[in-house]
Amino acid sequence: MNSQPPAPYCYDLRIRLHDTDAAGVLFYGHLFRHAHDAYESFMDQIGFPLHELIGAGAAPSLPLPISRAEARYLRPLRQGDAVRVELRVAEVRTRSFALDYRFLDDQDRPCAEARTVHCLVGGDGASLPHALRRALTERVDHRPIRL
Amino acid sequence: MNSQPPAPYCYDLRIRLHDTDAAGVLFYGHLFRHAHDAYESFMDQIGFPLHELIGAGAAPSLPLPISRAEARYLRPLRQGDAVRVELRVAEVRTRSFALDYRFLDDQDRPCAEARTVHCLVGGDGASLPHALRRALTERVDHRPIRL
Amino acid sequence: MNSQPPAPYCYDLRIRLHDTDAAGVLFYGHLFRHAHDAYESFMDQIGFPLHELIGAGAAPSLPLPISRAEARYLRPLRQGDAVRVELRVAEVRTRSFALDYRFLDDQDRPCAEARTVHCLVGGDGASLPHALRRALTERVDHRPIRL
Amino acid sequence: MNSQPPAPYCYDLRIRLHDTDAAGVLFYGHLFRHAHDAYESFMDQIGFPLHELIGAGAAPSLPLPISRAEARYLRPLRQGDAVRVELRVAEVRTRSFALDYRFLDDQDRPCAEARTVHCLVGGDGASLPHALRRALTERVDHRPIRL
Repeated sequence: MNSQPPAPYCYDLRIRLHDTDAAGVLFYGHLFRHAHDAYESFMDQIGFPLHELIGAGAAPSLPLPISRAEARYLRPLRQGDAVRVELRVAEVRTRSFALDYRFLDDQDRPCAEARTVHCLVGGDGASLPHALRRALTERVDHRPIRL
Repeated sequence: MNSQPPAPYCYDLRIRLHDTDAAGVLFYGHLFRHAHDAYESFMDQIGFPLHELIGAGAAPSLPLPISRAEARYLRPLRQGDAVRVELRVAEVRTRSFALDYRFLDDQDRPCAEARTVHCLVGGDGASLPHALRRALTERVDHRPIRL
Repeated sequence: MNSQPPAPYCYDLRIRLHDTDAAGVLFYGHLFRHAHDAYESFMDQIGFPLHELIGAGAAPSLPLPISRAEARYLRPLRQGDAVRVELRVAEVRTRSFALDYRFLDDQDRPCAEARTVHCLVGGDGASLPHALRRALTERVDHRPIRL
Repeated sequence: MNSQPPAPYCYDLRIRLHDTDAAGVLFYGHLFRHAHDAYESFMDQIGFPLHELIGAGAAPSLPLPISRAEARYLRPLRQGDAVRVELRVAEVRTRSFALDYRFLDDQDRPCAEARTVHCLVGGDGASLPHALRRALTERVDHRPIRL
């Protein structure tokens, strides 16, 4: 049993020209692309690479689409900015889980926050695979960000 | 005073190949691109084209970034699907406004819902221009979608 | 036999905020997204909707990836610009075909040109389906644009 | 005078879910996004970060849009694939320069090749700044890829 909340998973990126728009800053929708990149990288690290879940090829797939997404934008991000994403597991349920993302600039100032909810579909009554649930549950951080 | 809520602004689109991902359905983040397209089209129609607000060129710009965005995904969307976006003005405040989007397939089934909040930044204490506020307020629909 | 070259297929779009970048104009890579949208719309019209070719679902798929793409940029495009794409079939071969795209602004000035080559893969020695080849060949325009 | 061609600039990336489409592989247009990311990273390294050229803010900007882009696709890329981009300076002229990109998978097999041409606009008769030209010229590799 952890008394300490687990360290967040960190994912680094740089804001690129195509992330920005004519207003000079990150186009809001692209934040979700970066959140998903962090999620893919996180899933690799905990042993559930997304291409195995999607089941490209022969493997049976585990359809885990995002059922909900939200973001709050706190500071503009510009081309060239270095950003760190801190990903935390916010909640794990029988058929779904929620992830929180905090986007920090190179001075550790929060620039944006996001949450995604991933939900198993189909397979009446099916639950998340036990191993995935355990891997996620071990990393739950009970101090969710406030969106 | 309207006793009838105003009709939503409708924007039609088709899901394109680049909207989908290897899971075969719309990549969640791209929903926000489509929501913004509907918003740009709506702003044109009510007389506040975005390129004037952004002030590309000589005009003073009106920085109105999105401060918050959320979406709920109800049915998968696939390449070739025809989608209608119903855009409603959910709320108008002194310095911000909120828009609701309902995404319907060609059988009028809701596939997704979204909300964006647009907030004036800078210019201490400045309010939204009177004409913009009035144009938005006239179109407020007090039956917000539930995200 | 046509003595007149066939009319190009026309596809209209508007440059959206997410198409632009912090330099204020269309991000070059997004031109290819629009070219593909025009292609998808064209394929619908000639009776070969892409989702059938991709074979999402039960149908056997026809893998027709793009093997080559090029573009030339002639005039900057900005948020709000109305653009017409003229799509022409440039060439049809046994296993591949080439499409040309001309991007015109609302004063009919060319803003960009592009070409994509689509090539059947796998299925040793297989040819494009006869019906598709015929549909494309009927529309060949022997006055290719010069990239 | 170099007798050895300079080493290419290397940029690593991973193919993400949003890079792929319902056909299961990289959407062709997204290759250009990755090429530009490599270019931005390269420009940082040689001392000409793009945000300074674009002149977001006070600095006078150096408008260097891409006038031409092309790509050839050799092997499908899938979600999760690790890709190395080798960037080479192919040519430097008075007002323009060309960059070549080779995309290699984790077994060093070429998956795609691309070229972009960057051209100074406006400023009648103006040339590329001397320092930029020199930095690029030092890195010219006279063994261009064949598109």
